[in-house]
Amino acid sequence: SDIGRLSIQCADQPGIVAAVAGFLAEHGANIVELGQFSTDSENGEFFQRTVFHLAGLTDALADLERDFAVQVGSRFAMKYTFTSTATPKRVAIMVSKYDHCLLELLWRNKRGDLDMEITVVVSNHPDLEADVASFGIPFVYIPVTKDTKAEAESAQLELLAGKVDLVVMARYMQILSAGFLFNVGCPVINIHHSFLPAFAGAGPYLKAKERGVKLIGATAHYATANLDEGPIIEQDVVRVSHRDGVGELERRGAEVERSVLARAVQWHCEDRVMTFGNSTTIL
Amino acid sequence: SDIGRLSIQCADQPGIVAAVAGFLAEHGANIVELGQFSTDSENGEFFQRTVFHLAGLTDALADLERDFAVQVGSRFAMKYTFTSTATPKRVAIMVSKYDHCLLELLWRNKRGDLDMEITVVVSNHPDLEADVASFGIPFVYIPVTKDTKAEAESAQLELLAGKVDLVVMARYMQILSAGFLFNVGCPVINIHHSFLPAFAGAGPYLKAKERGVKLIGATAHYATANLDEGPIIEQDVVRVSHRDGVGELERRGAEVERSVLARAVQWHCEDRVMTFGNSTTIL
Amino acid sequence: SDIGRLSIQCADQPGIVAAVAGFLAEHGANIVELGQFSTDSENGEFFQRTVFHLAGLTDALADLERDFAVQVGSRFAMKYTFTSTATPKRVAIMVSKYDHCLLELLWRNKRGDLDMEITVVVSNHPDLEADVASFGIPFVYIPVTKDTKAEAESAQLELLAGKVDLVVMARYMQILSAGFLFNVGCPVINIHHSFLPAFAGAGPYLKAKERGVKLIGATAHYATANLDEGPIIEQDVVRVSHRDGVGELERRGAEVERSVLARAVQWHCEDRVMTFGNSTTIL
Amino acid sequence: SDIGRLSIQCADQPGIVAAVAGFLAEHGANIVELGQFSTDSENGEFFQRTVFHLAGLTDALADLERDFAVQVGSRFAMKYTFTSTATPKRVAIMVSKYDHCLLELLWRNKRGDLDMEITVVVSNHPDLEADVASFGIPFVYIPVTKDTKAEAESAQLELLAGKVDLVVMARYMQILSAGFLFNVGCPVINIHHSFLPAFAGAGPYLKAKERGVKLIGATAHYATANLDEGPIIEQDVVRVSHRDGVGELERRGAEVERSVLARAVQWHCEDRVMTFGNSTTIL
Repeated sequence: SDIGRLSIQCADQPGIVAAVAGFLAEHGANIVELGQFSTDSENGEFFQRTVFHLAGLTDALADLERDFAVQVGSRFAMKYTFTSTATPKRVAIMVSKYDHCLLELLWRNKRGDLDMEITVVVSNHPDLEADVASFGIPFVYIPVTKDTKAEAESAQLELLAGKVDLVVMARYMQILSAGFLFNVGCPVINIHHSFLPAFAGAGPYLKAKERGVKLIGATAHYATANLDEGPIIEQDVVRVSHRDGVGELERRGAEVERSVLARAVQWHCEDRVMTFGNSTTIL
Repeated sequence: SDIGRLSIQCADQPGIVAAVAGFLAEHGANIVELGQFSTDSENGEFFQRTVFHLAGLTDALADLERDFAVQVGSRFAMKYTFTSTATPKRVAIMVSKYDHCLLELLWRNKRGDLDMEITVVVSNHPDLEADVASFGIPFVYIPVTKDTKAEAESAQLELLAGKVDLVVMARYMQILSAGFLFNVGCPVINIHHSFLPAFAGAGPYLKAKERGVKLIGATAHYATANLDEGPIIEQDVVRVSHRDGVGELERRGAEVERSVLARAVQWHCEDRVMTFGNSTTIL
Repeated sequence: SDIGRLSIQCADQPGIVAAVAGFLAEHGANIVELGQFSTDSENGEFFQRTVFHLAGLTDALADLERDFAVQVGSRFAMKYTFTSTATPKRVAIMVSKYDHCLLELLWRNKRGDLDMEITVVVSNHPDLEADVASFGIPFVYIPVTKDTKAEAESAQLELLAGKVDLVVMARYMQILSAGFLFNVGCPVINIHHSFLPAFAGAGPYLKAKERGVKLIGATAHYATANLDEGPIIEQDVVRVSHRDGVGELERRGAEVERSVLARAVQWHCEDRVMTFGNSTTIL
Repeated sequence: SDIGRLSIQCADQPGIVAAVAGFLAEHGANIVELGQFSTDSENGEFFQRTVFHLAGLTDALADLERDFAVQVGSRFAMKYTFTSTATPKRVAIMVSKYDHCLLELLWRNKRGDLDMEITVVVSNHPDLEADVASFGIPFVYIPVTKDTKAEAESAQLELLAGKVDLVVMARYMQILSAGFLFNVGCPVINIHHSFLPAFAGAGPYLKAKERGVKLIGATAHYATANLDEGPIIEQDVVRVSHRDGVGELERRGAEVERSVLARAVQWHCEDRVMTFGNSTTIL
């Protein structure tokens, strides 16, 4: 509980690493992990993730943030966040009928492999209620039809906005409106069942079969108003052959989907993912 | 030199395997490898590749083909071909300035890992002449400009049509016309430097960088009149990160390109690849 | 339910494929999938897996087997088995405290991706009883101590011998005696948490960390009296780095273990795995 | 040519990152890449690789090193090295008859993908002389027999000791003595044709075939007096099947060997590899 993380992002310029390291050293924090990246040595964007140990972090956090703003943040015009591992992110999972991505997240979380607090599972179908209940997590059924979509999104926002730090679409088979994405007030991670940008949109496994590809994949990305176009966090593929029908592609793909989504959620919860334009930097 | 291969393709129907196996047994051939696939158990398309040993194959081949036509081929309305490993395929390689795919094929062939007879390398640039010469293979320089493309293709056809069994575009940076593909009279394999259908067309590594994908790939496919849309033979990918610029994507991608193309050419030369619609069956 | 499988194994000799195909054709069966392999074209061992469709298979199966013995099996001195997909294999799972391999098998089976009838889960610890109960499968707790091992194995044999077609050790942390393996009367599949033969025995993740390997893996193999030396069915690896401590190796390894074991069990249940000496042929 | 690298290694302790970053900032250097790792937050070993830009680096390097020793190095009891990308490492390649690893290194170097100065190729066989000559690199043939090994190593040391920064054994099929390794005075990288620690020693592909493994691999490691036991730099594997004989394992393995060795050499030449005990940290 004395482990904190500092994520920063700003225009690249000399002296950032020295300033941050000096600040932490002066405040008694010891750096235990440091990742750093610049998109270009001239006029690039700079990213840094620093994990540090500081005795009494929980009490010191507010002061640390205030001092950093004055001493470092404003000097370099940084975006930055301090987080403490003592406070795991609050996460809502949205799901429809497919259980594989949901169960993978619930199981890894229960097992202690994926540090987050799953506060609620929201679904437009009642099917997975018992599965979720067995993990002791609230399940909220909010049906969605073409006519009730706006109303349903209002109910979802009521439940989520301001109350969670992350929303995960674990094969939630509805498109979230731009309004929802704006108003929910936190990042939304989606898993798409293809190797984007190939086979964007619906029915990727059927399209993959028709095109005769030799590998299929899955893509975890931040949801944006442009469907399937948000910044990619993680992707992976698995080899298939002419012998695999669409059903087998779905089964093989489900394995890739759940591991790709779990990795993306884990990295996000560990403050490893930073976005710039439409790309992500994973530190 | 007593090893032959029989490739067949026809509408699926009962008794094909028995008829082929019976035919070969009666003619004294022993099956040493058999691959078989049907797209569907009802109304599917059937594919079979049979490798057999027959003492005195070279002399017997013509009789075998004639008998097969009468006894099996016509009965099942098959497309079929007999080949002998004693007669490797004659292959022409087309290339521009990038050497990596060309050298991989030349080196594997010289080393005995890729059984084919490379009869000529054709290029629209003179740059790789010395490299090719060191392998003792003829290099023909046929420049291509916008104005001379038709003329250049005529010269290429003069050199290739009827004289080779396969053309390999080893990063040949010109689009072959539908007329060329028709008149060359043999399959043409192309390597595309992306994981098709993602990033079809020119500049795939730049597009991949802009989209922020986490894997890049390469695709070997048969060239057709529809650019980058022909039947896929083989694909592979390699993991990249935000740290890799376009130049590094090109370097990493070059590794994937050469291994993917080499596998595709090898499978083709071993008569493993059969096409149906826009897909391939690899047996 | 009209789909059957015929697995054969014998000394390689001319005419086998023709004889089998002819037999099936004469009995009205249509081959829908055929895999075949010979270890050597001279004096090799021959393996064939044939999937066929036969209307009324369930009633015809006994006659088919009897005719095959007379007409084909005895002629080639074959080992062979006929199975019907209408009768899934009866499988017992043995487990200790780690749940990941067990849950993967239970979940895939429930989802319809892994066709078998899990008749019982046997454990030397009571910890996973509730998890198993939620799948509606009997859980039998048989504690094992150094002093009670023989007694415990008797109780296990009482439960399993003659009643199951396969035993899966899903991270069962006890060594089964040669006597147990002999008396249980069916194959036993084990998952070892390393890339065998590297790091055989106990504590492979610690050994892997100490040796500084860059990939860790898992191996599914048939259990034999020689610990960790039985025929390998499937293996896979995942990349690790100097940053991963032993705990992280265990977490990453757990993912590989469950997918490797699931594939091995699936292939076994589909009659794809044949053993010869200490190797397996997967058709 | 104004790009430098600073590699440091010492006992972990508060303030290292700040001290190094402060030093570089004060000397006008801008950090363009920083990798950092500690084996443990308490009593761990600390590693850092810093790439920096400094106008006029070549002239400033000597002063920079002297100042660093006084201001930072001695304070933390560091091992450290400064290098400049303007001075590529001098590399000798040792080889026997197999050409694949050698050609991969020569070709990548020629192409500009692998920044080093290959000063000489040493072989105990004359076979590859012409191949090496075509790259314009000196080839020295030093035969080795059981009786002349000591003498041969003396000749090799005469050629190499003090004249190169790295020796690469690119399938050099002789064991280098502990004396040679000590006296050559620079790191020696070896490629072993198996996934160590599996199948250490001679004939790994045959052993792999006999054990029936489903993946084969290669391992690049620093050579030490204990054969095949030195710190591992990189490993990779490729899937094989029962169909692959020993010859095919060798062919598939050769592909893995050359890419694994090339990556290891590249990382070493970029000062990314640091050793601690028998493990490597790759930054």
